[in-house]
Amino acid sequence: MIETPSLVDQYCHGVLRTELGLGTFEAQLAHTEGPPAPGTTLFDTQTGFAVRRWCPPLLGLEPHCAPARYLARRRELGVLEAGRRLLRGSGITTYLVDTGLPGDLTGPTEMACDGAAEAREIVRLELLAEQVADTSGTVKSFLANLAESVHGAAANAVAFTSVAGLRHGLALAPEPPGPGEVRGAAGRWLAGRRVGGALTDPVLLRHLLWIAVASGLPLQLHAGLGEPGSRIDRTDPVLLSDFVRATAGLGTDLILLHGYPYHRHAAHLAGVFPHVYTDSGAALVRTGARAATVLAEILELAPFGKILFSTGAHGLPELHVVGARLFREALGRVLGTWVADGAWSLEDGQRVARMVAAGNARRVYGLSGA
Amino acid sequence: MIETPSLVDQYCHGVLRTELGLGTFEAQLAHTEGPPAPGTTLFDTQTGFAVRRWCPPLLGLEPHCAPARYLARRRELGVLEAGRRLLRGSGITTYLVDTGLPGDLTGPTEMACDGAAEAREIVRLELLAEQVADTSGTVKSFLANLAESVHGAAANAVAFTSVAGLRHGLALAPEPPGPGEVRGAAGRWLAGRRVGGALTDPVLLRHLLWIAVASGLPLQLHAGLGEPGSRIDRTDPVLLSDFVRATAGLGTDLILLHGYPYHRHAAHLAGVFPHVYTDSGAALVRTGARAATVLAEILELAPFGKILFSTGAHGLPELHVVGARLFREALGRVLGTWVADGAWSLEDGQRVARMVAAGNARRVYGLSGA
Amino acid sequence: MIETPSLVDQYCHGVLRTELGLGTFEAQLAHTEGPPAPGTTLFDTQTGFAVRRWCPPLLGLEPHCAPARYLARRRELGVLEAGRRLLRGSGITTYLVDTGLPGDLTGPTEMACDGAAEAREIVRLELLAEQVADTSGTVKSFLANLAESVHGAAANAVAFTSVAGLRHGLALAPEPPGPGEVRGAAGRWLAGRRVGGALTDPVLLRHLLWIAVASGLPLQLHAGLGEPGSRIDRTDPVLLSDFVRATAGLGTDLILLHGYPYHRHAAHLAGVFPHVYTDSGAALVRTGARAATVLAEILELAPFGKILFSTGAHGLPELHVVGARLFREALGRVLGTWVADGAWSLEDGQRVARMVAAGNARRVYGLSGA
Repeated sequence: MIETPSLVDQYCHGVLRTELGLGTFEAQLAHTEGPPAPGTTLFDTQTGFAVRRWCPPLLGLEPHCAPARYLARRRELGVLEAGRRLLRGSGITTYLVDTGLPGDLTGPTEMACDGAAEAREIVRLELLAEQVADTSGTVKSFLANLAESVHGAAANAVAFTSVAGLRHGLALAPEPPGPGEVRGAAGRWLAGRRVGGALTDPVLLRHLLWIAVASGLPLQLHAGLGEPGSRIDRTDPVLLSDFVRATAGLGTDLILLHGYPYHRHAAHLAGVFPHVYTDSGAALVRTGARAATVLAEILELAPFGKILFSTGAHGLPELHVVGARLFREALGRVLGTWVADGAWSLEDGQRVARMVAAGNARRVYGLSGA
Repeated sequence: MIETPSLVDQYCHGVLRTELGLGTFEAQLAHTEGPPAPGTTLFDTQTGFAVRRWCPPLLGLEPHCAPARYLARRRELGVLEAGRRLLRGSGITTYLVDTGLPGDLTGPTEMACDGAAEAREIVRLELLAEQVADTSGTVKSFLANLAESVHGAAANAVAFTSVAGLRHGLALAPEPPGPGEVRGAAGRWLAGRRVGGALTDPVLLRHLLWIAVASGLPLQLHAGLGEPGSRIDRTDPVLLSDFVRATAGLGTDLILLHGYPYHRHAAHLAGVFPHVYTDSGAALVRTGARAATVLAEILELAPFGKILFSTGAHGLPELHVVGARLFREALGRVLGTWVADGAWSLEDGQRVARMVAAGNARRVYGLSGA
Repeated sequence: MIETPSLVDQYCHGVLRTELGLGTFEAQLAHTEGPPAPGTTLFDTQTGFAVRRWCPPLLGLEPHCAPARYLARRRELGVLEAGRRLLRGSGITTYLVDTGLPGDLTGPTEMACDGAAEAREIVRLELLAEQVADTSGTVKSFLANLAESVHGAAANAVAFTSVAGLRHGLALAPEPPGPGEVRGAAGRWLAGRRVGGALTDPVLLRHLLWIAVASGLPLQLHAGLGEPGSRIDRTDPVLLSDFVRATAGLGTDLILLHGYPYHRHAAHLAGVFPHVYTDSGAALVRTGARAATVLAEILELAPFGKILFSTGAHGLPELHVVGARLFREALGRVLGTWVADGAWSLEDGQRVARMVAAGNARRVYGLSGA
């Protein structure tokens, strides 16, 4: 009843080029600080069960087959062929790829080729700053090169993304830092830094955000569930309220990624502020059989024109598949139930499904087909 | 199976007396900071869809008809006749009306007449203080007039309401401020204030709350979702814990309004403290097709004798309709399912429905029919 | 379809030995600060309704019979016989009993006998410290006796439990306090203390936690809903993030009890940290007909090998019954639906049910049958 012929994955990463064993595959299923507890496996998670549901059939196996059997078949096909079958089976027609994570991951061009889809690049601000720091000799040249790099990246990228929330927390002072403050912070950072050192200074994180805002490109902000080492209470999107208010009316859209378990807060901000959008996908990969409920919670306060689909997938093409299939099924189930109950008309349900699956992203990121 | 023949709307506002065009009507559907984002409309929200579901039939149209068609029919009938049909179709039998918002809104008498219902007034404390400030020459006369005004209002009003959470945040010091502290704050406020200036000083906000507590009239406290300019993390009702503890045993009931997305926290407080009640209606207008789930979340911890229905409607009689219909349907669905599952007896389900819809409010506010 | 033949209640208390009247029974149904509000009863809560659903049939009455009738039948059988019928009807095969609450409650031996089950003791750290303080003359002897008592208790107990979150809040400094700091805090506490005085000093609470961690026994931490006098925002398990990180790799497991309304946060920590587990039962007793949804929310992020069942029951054997029945029904419903939808295989559903109901607890606590 509710169909989504086209899916724009507005935030994901590439996939690993290397063959994976059972252990290395399992390690990609969750974001943990340490190995699985004795007597447990990361396959016994919502993500693990969702992978076992959706992926084996794309490689010619029965759903829910044992992990070892699935991995054997995956190796039999080879990582490239398995990746192609999986990506092409996901239903995703456009990938927006954050290229800012380490590891031997495919980039947008390969994602497009392997997935028989379009792909565009998202530039991660903190990595850009770290790369500029690696090659700049002085504070002055660092700051000049940084501004130039951000503006240069804006010419080709489809969006910027920031992990300021994971690096420092989202409770950042809302206004742009002053030039002297930025120079001081840059000096301290560069002086104490070795090549490749991570940017965690709050003044420089804010400076980066404001350079990005000035570029006019959509700016994605990581919120909610994050990477090992972070604290989720420091990534509650409500902490961004004052930054959001400070950036209102400047013409740059902000997209709150992930959100869960604070996704109702992200939806609230998308409802209050014209330039704020919220993500409705990455959390589904983590919550699996609960995807319809999590999606429905986002659909409470977020206006339907302000919700964007993503998988947030990283490393395994299985995660792109799972993100897309869970989203499609959840959206069909949630909207289909509302239509069946008479709460929504069928026409509205179909229209909102197309908006959330692809139309909103095409409009916000200026993609073809918009 | 579960019926609610009588509905006491324990918190709403009046309706606009002016004819509305598509844009002015749309602007009433949400609480935003700025116009809808390009390419979006506030009709594409849960509130917009709920209005299109429930209201057109009351004006002789098909459910889910296009907004322009609905507005044309509304203007054809005229704002007064359309308002009467809508309010009388809501099923609300008593309106408790907060008269403290600006704009050309109908008051309790007109609401009663237009809605063929009873109506009583709720007095907003901050507006009362601002009106007293407008007409008092000195700190001493301001404080004396303020106390007199609150006690005078208590003679006719059915409750007081406070937006201290939206003005300052709910993390207020729990005890009453001392007389010297109050005089100092009043002096500073009056000295810097122009006529109509808003009260945001935390000492005076607390002083007002304690005068209201002393009156013995039920005191409604805004929590959770609020007005543009506020931050929802500052309106989490759990921030009121110490104030709630400080007012225990004084004989004055506290009613936590709205609550969402912290409605589980409000329900918790209603479960722990004998004098605390929680609201189960206004959030439903914002969450539309999700109303049954939001209501069910309130029904987790809140004792069934401590939950009160409201619409929180403001400006559009459509919002009174939507608030009432969503509540009625959600309550019937949630309790009906529990009865069908055998978790509750039918008799208990029917009894709880009557309590939440009207009985609890009649008891707390001392309304006839209690 | 989904069965749980064995239930290990990983956290509960004993039951009262005295006959109860309607009022004294009612008072055990909720954790309130004060008597029920005028015109309300604590029987009109999810817990009250769940007791009326599940318990009367175990005493030969119809489900949902009136409280007075149920209490009359209970007295007719006598507290001992009624308790036996209830506990034996709960389906619980092992009770882990926190013996650290005051009142005339049965201990593990009686629980085992009355319930025809196994039972083991959980030692409450704060009570242990208070008992040591009652009998120690000096700071030096107190600290020596404390360490000895904790290590002695570890020989027989199955776990330690801490209410540091209810006494002070979970935002404790994560590292162990230094010896001088501990001596200073102990000196101040002992000097100002009367026999039986409660331990609330944050330095001593941390010291206790770290002694317990050193023992290697599983350590249960109260989080979320607590006792009268606490504030739930101070018991959000996310506040434990840094303590959790500081105890990683030491070989001691941490179990987050209760969690609700922050149970998604507890599940998140169980997903990120190998040594963290989360509780899936006590919240169900409080939320009754909503148990399936609350359980499903825990099942979003928590790996299935990291979830443990408990009732959290205290005083009334009815609460052990309700905790067990609600859990069993909720688990069957949630997992059964996922199996019916094809999201999970039947075999996986049955396996996860056995893990959450008993297998995980047997492994973590080293119980027979593991």
